Amino acid sequence: MRAKPNATPDDIAFGINACALALSSGYAKSVLYLRDTRNERVLQLVDLAIDAGLRAEAVEEFRLDQLTGEGVHQGILVRIGNVEPVDLRQAAAGDGPALVLLLDSITDPQNVGAILRTAVAVGVAAVVLPRRRGALLTPGVHRASAGLSFLAPVAAPQNLNQAVATLKDAGFWVVAAATGEGSVAATESDWPRKTALVLGSEGEGVAQLLLRESDFRVALPMDARVESLNVGVACGALSYLWRRQWG
Amino acid sequence: MRAKPNATPDDIAFGINACALALSSGYAKSVLYLRDTRNERVLQLVDLAIDAGLRAEAVEEFRLDQLTGEGVHQGILVRIGNVEPVDLRQAAAGDGPALVLLLDSITDPQNVGAILRTAVAVGVAAVVLPRRRGALLTPGVHRASAGLSFLAPVAAPQNLNQAVATLKDAGFWVVAAATGEGSVAATESDWPRKTALVLGSEGEGVAQLLLRESDFRVALPMDARVESLNVGVACGALSYLWRRQWG
Repeated sequence: MRAKPNATPDDIAFGINACALALSSGYAKSVLYLRDTRNERVLQLVDLAIDAGLRAEAVEEFRLDQLTGEGVHQGILVRIGNVEPVDLRQAAAGDGPALVLLLDSITDPQNVGAILRTAVAVGVAAVVLPRRRGALLTPGVHRASAGLSFLAPVAAPQNLNQAVATLKDAGFWVVAAATGEGSVAATESDWPRKTALVLGSEGEGVAQLLLRESDFRVALPMDARVESLNVGVACGALSYLWRRQWG
Repeated sequence: MRAKPNATPDDIAFGINACALALSSGYAKSVLYLRDTRNERVLQLVDLAIDAGLRAEAVEEFRLDQLTGEGVHQGILVRIGNVEPVDLRQAAAGDGPALVLLLDSITDPQNVGAILRTAVAVGVAAVVLPRRRGALLTPGVHRASAGLSFLAPVAAPQNLNQAVATLKDAGFWVVAAATGEGSVAATESDWPRKTALVLGSEGEGVAQLLLRESDFRVALPMDARVESLNVGVACGALSYLWRRQWG
């Protein structure tokens, strides 16, 4: 199948932070940068790429605008190789305290990016995304994660139920971020040492099948007028409540 | 001064959630909606507006696109009255546990919106934004907060140093979200019962003058490869760590 003439490619990352981490992590294959740039950090990244033996091409602004779909590219983009998923069974092994995040139907690049950034900060063992067609991570995710997508331990099993089974085998307790019957306030809960935290989309929540597979439910206590928090914010609050106990 | 011909107006909110809360909070003055909409929630909001005696006008899609600057309007927008700030001295009074958020140079509408949404959820006493020219809150903030901007207790003093003085008078301890000398891990800190939490922008952090006025510094512990979290995510994690102790 031919790509649409104006399609923005999937195999790029753009913006200074995302390009810096694509370069330092070895995912960058080549660089395009704004011919007239005076941005010191962009010029440093171009030098770094050339030193690493990569091709660096100076282009006009419209070309960067076009390739990024008018994204905030700051004058630089990199072509990247496939981001390789980690093996969940390996990531879940070990006896120490561990947190794994499972994202159920969370597809907005802003949210996925924010969650990957938090995941690296908190030091999670894995972030589980169900495998989909196309690239595992998109340019919008790289951008929203400030490039931490290139450092995050992303696992991509066939489906989340399979991941839950793998994690239970490895001694994890499955905690769904959900209200409803038996749900405990996340600020008062006793977090399992090995926690697999399932996060659902803001509209739909966690799928029924995954709720049934969960050992506990926790929810952030909140004002009744608020239906839900932004899922990236909720992930940050829940992850640090876990880390407070086990960090 | 005349508005630019194609300027997007400041006195609107758009999207279903933001319009619903603008209507229920009494800020909505009139409604514009997509003539061909089949969205049940949009039609319900239009009925609600008409019942409340507001003018509701059916328009073509390009008009909504134009007024929202190609925003995700979901077929509805409302014209709103000025969002009135709360009085900080009043909001800070009282003897119970209380959290106030102070936003130093945080201007990105996505971040301000996420913080206001979290603020209402957590039940803060006030969110302090320094007064600026133009509208206190913008359409992008209403949208990003899912309309919770209309319920958030926003205070807008002349500057943040003045707000800090007011809060200290009212018995608050000032806690800066910052690394550096004397900074305590936010997951291990003993939070003051009345906490004024100062959050800085992701690039710049909290201003020097405010750091000097602060009683403590706290920072979320994180992997050394991560420069900072998204400020909306950090706000969520810090606010719920406070609430865990005092909620």
